Parts: sequence; C-alpha cells; structure tokens
Amino acid sequence: MNFITKLNAAWAANDSLLCVGLDPDIERLPVQFRDAPDGIYQFCKEIIDATAGLACAFKPQIAYFAALAAEGQLERICAYLREAYPHIPLILDSKRGDIGATAKQYAREAYDRYGADAVTVSPYMGSDSVEPYMEWQDRGVIVLCRTSNPGGSDLQFLQVDGKPLYQHVAQLVADKWNANGQCALVVGATFPEEIRAVRDIVGEMPLLIPGIGAQGGDIEATVRAGRTTSGTGMMINSSRAILYAKPQGGEDFAAAARRVAEETRQAINAHR
Amino acid sequence: MNFITKLNAAWAANDSLLCVGLDPDIERLPVQFRDAPDGIYQFCKEIIDATAGLACAFKPQIAYFAALAAEGQLERICAYLREAYPHIPLILDSKRGDIGATAKQYAREAYDRYGADAVTVSPYMGSDSVEPYMEWQDRGVIVLCRTSNPGGSDLQFLQVDGKPLYQHVAQLVADKWNANGQCALVVGATFPEEIRAVRDIVGEMPLLIPGIGAQGGDIEATVRAGRTTSGTGMMINSSRAILYAKPQGGEDFAAAARRVAEETRQAINAHR
Repeated sequence: MNFITKLNAAWAANDSLLCVGLDPDIERLPVQFRDAPDGIYQFCKEIIDATAGLACAFKPQIAYFAALAAEGQLERICAYLREAYPHIPLILDSKRGDIGATAKQYAREAYDRYGADAVTVSPYMGSDSVEPYMEWQDRGVIVLCRTSNPGGSDLQFLQVDGKPLYQHVAQLVADKWNANGQCALVVGATFPEEIRAVRDIVGEMPLLIPGIGAQGGDIEATVRAGRTTSGTGMMINSSRAILYAKPQGGEDFAAAARRVAEETRQAINAHR
Repeated sequence: MNFITKLNAAWAANDSLLCVGLDPDIERLPVQFRDAPDGIYQFCKEIIDATAGLACAFKPQIAYFAALAAEGQLERICAYLREAYPHIPLILDSKRGDIGATAKQYAREAYDRYGADAVTVSPYMGSDSVEPYMEWQDRGVIVLCRTSNPGGSDLQFLQVDGKPLYQHVAQLVADKWNANGQCALVVGATFPEEIRAVRDIVGEMPLLIPGIGAQGGDIEATVRAGRTTSGTGMMINSSRAILYAKPQGGEDFAAAARRVAEETRQAINAHR
C-alpha cells in the first residue's frame, strides 16, 4: 500500500485529520523519563498508544533525537509504530535537501533505516534533490512550500512574476515532481489564505499543516481553507500542545495528551 | 578562536583553499574497510591523516553516516579531527533548515554533539531558522546560496525584482544574518559567473564552493571569480575525486588521495 492510499485509509478509519508530532524535548518530559536510558522511547510509546485511535499520522521530528544522540530510540519508536499501528502513516520530519548522490543517502535513512512512509524535504536545491526519493515508489515526499514560522516570509513571499515564491513551488510540485503521485506539501496553519491559494493550485494533493496548537494557527480558518471536496486532504499537525498537555483532575501526561488530541480532532472535524 | 579566524589561519598555515569532503560511500571504500565494524571511521581517519597538511577544512557529509546508522563513527571522526588537527576547521555538511525551536536542536547536534566549527544550513525557512545557530558565537553558519547541482536553478534562478533568487539570499545574509560575522555562503563551482556575482555582493565573506572534481567545475574560472583581494575567501571542496582517487604505481588509496589533494591544492594556488 502506498503512502497516499494509506493516508486516505487512516483519514477514514480514525475519522481524523490530526497528525501527532513527536518532538521529545528532554527538558519538558515528565520527570520519570528524563534520566531513563530509553526515556524518550518510553515517553513517545505512551503518547502513541494514547493517541493512535485519534490520529491520521505520526510525525517524529528527527532534530530532537539527533541533538541527544538518540537515533537508536527513534529507530525503536518507528519499529513500534510500524508493528503496533501499521495502518497509520509514519512521517519522518527531517526537511533534507541535497544533491542527488547525497539525497539518495537521506532517502535510505528515512525509508530503509526508519521505515518511514513519507519524509519532509526542502525544495531549495530543486528537482534532482527530490528525485532520488521517488525510487521508493510506495513512499511519500512532502515538500516545504509555505512554512508556519515568522521568517518563512523572507524567501517564500518574494514575488516572482507577480506571485510569491511559495506558489511557484506549489506549481512546480503539482506540474512536475508529482508525476508519480507521491507528493504532498507543507503549508503552515498560520497563513490560512495561503493554504487556500495552494489548495487552488494543487487540487487534491495532501497538505501537511503545522502551526496549530503552540504556534497559534486558527483551526476553523485552516480547515475551511485546506479541505478538499471530500472534506479531507490535510494532515493537521500538533506536537507540543499534545505532548506537554497540562494534566487535569487525576490525569497523567498520557491521558492529558489523549484529551487534547481528541479535542483537536473534534475541533477540526467541526469544520470539515 | 572563532570559525572565521580559524579559517583564516588554516588558509595561511597550509597555503591552501582546499576543503576535503568526507562522503564515505560504503560501496566505494577499499575492500578492507567495508565489513569492519568501524571501517568508515578507519577509512576517514587515513584520508584525514593523508591530507591534513594540504587542507583548509574538512567537511563530513552527514547523510552518508545517517544512511548506515553510523553516527557513532562520525562522532569519533569529529573527535579525532578536533584532537589531532585542532587548527583545521571542521564543517558539518547537513543543510538543515527548520523553525526556531527545532533549529536549536540541530545547532546542538552540530556544535555540541559533533563539535563542528561550522554547519551548512538551508535559507528556505528564513531568519528564525538560522538565528538559533548564532547563539554559539564562536561557530560558523554556512548558508546555501547557489548550489552546484543541475536542479539548483529550479528555485535559485527565479527572477525577483530583476535579479535571481540566489542573489537575494546573498544580499539577505550580507545585510542581516551576518551581523555577528559568523556567516559564509555555499556557491557551486559549476557556475563561475555566479560566484563572481555573489562575491560582488558579499565582500570578503568566505564562500564554500563544491562542484570541482567529480562534479566537473572549472578550477581556474572558480578561483578567478571567487578570490578576495587577499587571494583567499574560499573553501573549495573536493570529496569523491580525493576519497576514491585511483592509485598509481605502488600507491595505496591514502597515497592516491594525498596526491590528488596536492594536485588540486596546486591547481587552485596557480590562479590565486
């Protein structure tokens, strides 16, 4: 089953457009996980088990593992996801971008080593920096288009032939890089009008949308701008708001994460 | 000693603008290294020892290590470089680019974990994706500007206000991101006229120039276009042509690497 098919099935099975981001910042983990040798793995495993029924995808952010030399724990997390929840797409968020020979090594990292269904990539180095990923025909390539951070505008909003650069990226991916139907785009929730502009360019192509939760994006505006005719088409990511949800009543961190994930899923579904 | 000072000293000490790239493709290593548990480390160590007197920098490409789950060997290579050749800058080639909170993790990876003097980054996500690196005030940030690969033109050559995008990146780095004097730029040897255009924009800022050797860039044209008034200003990278140099006579791989590195250093110096 290829990435897009798997994603469509996960949207339906869990009635969810919520992508749960796994950004395990060691300083914010519950205290019992901070000093354990596999504390990051154990923490992420509990988050995964608590939210798997509510998510259309899981997205580990590799930077948090790389900073701590914890690639081994990321391998275990990915193996656990593939084994316990094989129907939920696993997206490796690594935003790689390099010349062809090097990109092939990064594709091996994402697809063979971690077994990811899809990987995020940067478009700055152009076509031959993404082509090597396409050799894994059942996997997905999620290209940065309009990012959710303030500095995103520095380049992405520069005007090229009367249109901002990010729209050229969307067009390039829709017209060329998506020839095999393996592509998706990253478009931040902090810019709903721009989600709409991208949706108009790319038709039914899936969008990975970071920026709700801790980054402050508006869920209603995001969903209205990004939904396809079938009311799907989006992986709306929340990381920190779920991972570090404040427990209420007798909740532990995992129950709090589940509650916030469920609230987010419902808030999204209210506007589909 | 900060990155730029260290680089200036290395240019002078070894009379060299040659950067030796460490891209250990397991399939191309001499057979004795392919199956050894630390074969990549041993291979790179021999290349480093053979070329350290001829190089102004070493640049490991992390993708080759990540594909093989060999980050531990990269850590050992970096530790060896810092210990045995502390006067030669260590550049981690990882081309990261992410939102601020994530970029900080990548900065930790490059500077704290691997002890790199500088790291390559992508500009696509803008200012807050590079600012976190600047907190390590003695380190360098090398921003992708005009890359050496064919697809580099897809975005970098788009016209913005009558100038190609890569020149806007050069201007942005020169005017803003380089406020603390920590920046350098990547400009490919495959486009000497564009090296000249970037040099005109950025003054004395160092340029990391890949694309000679296996990628076919012209050394004379590169040096004439990129040199500063002092005849330096460049880290001209060669990876595969040195690592996999064909032995002549009774040479082993390391002697062949040293010979090609010396030839390249001299070919560069002939035009400074």
